[in-house]
Amino acid sequence: MTMTVPDAIERGRTLTVPALRAVVDRLHPRLRHVVAYHRGWVDAAGEPLTGGGGKLVRPALALLSAEAAGAPAEVGLPAAVAVELVHDFSLLHDDLMDGDTERRHRATAWTVFGADGAILAGDALLGLAVQILLEVPGEPARRAALSLSAGVQELVRGQAEDLMFERRSDVTVADTLHMEDGKTGALLACSASLGAMLAGADDELVNALAEYGSRLGTAFQLIDDLLGIWGDPSVTGKPVLSDLRSRKKSVPVVVALEAGGAAADELRAFLTTTGEASEAELAHIAELIERAGGRDWTTAEADRQLKACENVLRSQSMPERAEAELLALARFVTERDR
Amino acid sequence: MTMTVPDAIERGRTLTVPALRAVVDRLHPRLRHVVAYHRGWVDAAGEPLTGGGGKLVRPALALLSAEAAGAPAEVGLPAAVAVELVHDFSLLHDDLMDGDTERRHRATAWTVFGADGAILAGDALLGLAVQILLEVPGEPARRAALSLSAGVQELVRGQAEDLMFERRSDVTVADTLHMEDGKTGALLACSASLGAMLAGADDELVNALAEYGSRLGTAFQLIDDLLGIWGDPSVTGKPVLSDLRSRKKSVPVVVALEAGGAAADELRAFLTTTGEASEAELAHIAELIERAGGRDWTTAEADRQLKACENVLRSQSMPERAEAELLALARFVTERDR
Repeated sequence: MTMTVPDAIERGRTLTVPALRAVVDRLHPRLRHVVAYHRGWVDAAGEPLTGGGGKLVRPALALLSAEAAGAPAEVGLPAAVAVELVHDFSLLHDDLMDGDTERRHRATAWTVFGADGAILAGDALLGLAVQILLEVPGEPARRAALSLSAGVQELVRGQAEDLMFERRSDVTVADTLHMEDGKTGALLACSASLGAMLAGADDELVNALAEYGSRLGTAFQLIDDLLGIWGDPSVTGKPVLSDLRSRKKSVPVVVALEAGGAAADELRAFLTTTGEASEAELAHIAELIERAGGRDWTTAEADRQLKACENVLRSQSMPERAEAELLALARFVTERDR
Repeated sequence: MTMTVPDAIERGRTLTVPALRAVVDRLHPRLRHVVAYHRGWVDAAGEPLTGGGGKLVRPALALLSAEAAGAPAEVGLPAAVAVELVHDFSLLHDDLMDGDTERRHRATAWTVFGADGAILAGDALLGLAVQILLEVPGEPARRAALSLSAGVQELVRGQAEDLMFERRSDVTVADTLHMEDGKTGALLACSASLGAMLAGADDELVNALAEYGSRLGTAFQLIDDLLGIWGDPSVTGKPVLSDLRSRKKSVPVVVALEAGGAAADELRAFLTTTGEASEAELAHIAELIERAGGRDWTTAEADRQLKACENVLRSQSMPERAEAELLALARFVTERDR
């Protein structure tokens, strides 16, 4: 199914893009070019591009988070900018570490500006993210920046585990979910709660919003794992069965491994192979995973997380519009063709 | 000449090392190993080493900074830990970007743990540094973390310029000093002022201490540039004429280039050569730089910065012992055989 883009995304972009551009302008020209290229604002030669910049889901969450606490969206703007900068920091570094040469059909920054360009631009954005939050006077900003720093630790932990898991054969479903919680959940938890923090909300609301974000992150990631195997290439923009091609130990795969038996043995043997697998072989492996319950379990778990994410929102009293928009955003982020 | 290690360094180590270990223990085991190895606490296999850990000049400054504001050294401890973590972050990333395979006679972290180990450990330390400061309740912590984040921007700018200058032939003395101010001065300015900030000192004292740190950083870097050409290998631990071997455009070199004339032309031609130069050729180039005034100018400028650094301290009223120790520390850091 196709969904219309929620209002919160459109409003979020209108507020966030100019603020984001102003902040990136503070960087040294060399690093500014790397970041503007990475964001799709300019090409490798520095010429402006139209479009680009992504959906800005995290900033939209940060702005709604302020509104959920009864404040104007603008109060969440420093948080919106900060979480997007942290997201860019992690993409710049992860693409380099993972050796990925393409992102959204464009050459990744490190392939254009070298490893040092990507490392330094990422470092600068991480510093800048904290700086933007701390430029807001008062105690809420300290609290928000502290929370963001803790989120960064989780993000880095998740990436470290992801790289380690590639070399391990004994990874459990619990390990994988914990790793994905770091890689995806932590920053979404920050996105959904920092705006409320800046608005001076109490701990109960802040924690509820963080849980909403964290569970939304898990749901999103589980769906991403489903699409990585059973997604339609015309929708995902990735080759069919792409996660199997790269032998990625995503959640459906690990669920099938944990199920044990002959299917698990065959799957385990496949994961140790290297080189190009045939379409027929990949389709057979996908079939194995499905029969072992990998697809159903992952789908059910994504639904359970999304449900929990809605329940935690409904447990709080907040302005009706903010609640409705947070729910709509959760559905938008997770309703991809699966 | 040889100097005895100032009291402030010894006291600083006693306070800082346990705090630093406790903070590094918070990291994911994989990243903890990278950091502990980098700091010389363990070997590549994770076995504990004795000694190691460096002089901890930056933490010593941070503790003295709190004392300069009339507070106990302990008030500066979060700042001491934070600046050392930022220093480690920058070394982990810079060694990788510069392709340096050795630091203090040990293999650099990226050669042992891979590029991803060094990148992630650096990222984690940068996040952790800010986190440690922000865990101190209250407004002074926000101010200190904001100042540290701004310092990180300068650090990254300095490294970006350093990498760019390697490929440029039109770098001026002013460019080089500005680059070195980012690479070395910014973090020393933070080290010397964050302790006072945490102690709630007024802007005048904080700014004076930051200036002291910044000028100390410049003096230190200029002396490092002198030692890179004329230093005694038995003292520096680097090969004789090492900066000329690597064609580094350090301050004495750029001063000689700016002087113009035949010597500058010959020097410029040398800098474009690659491969191993003979001892005789290197000695001749060092001689050219000296005759063009590169050595004298750099020595005079280092002395001028050190003098200014003493004057700015004396302009402030602060506890006598703190002032005396800050002066002693400045002399210790800059009095290397030159």
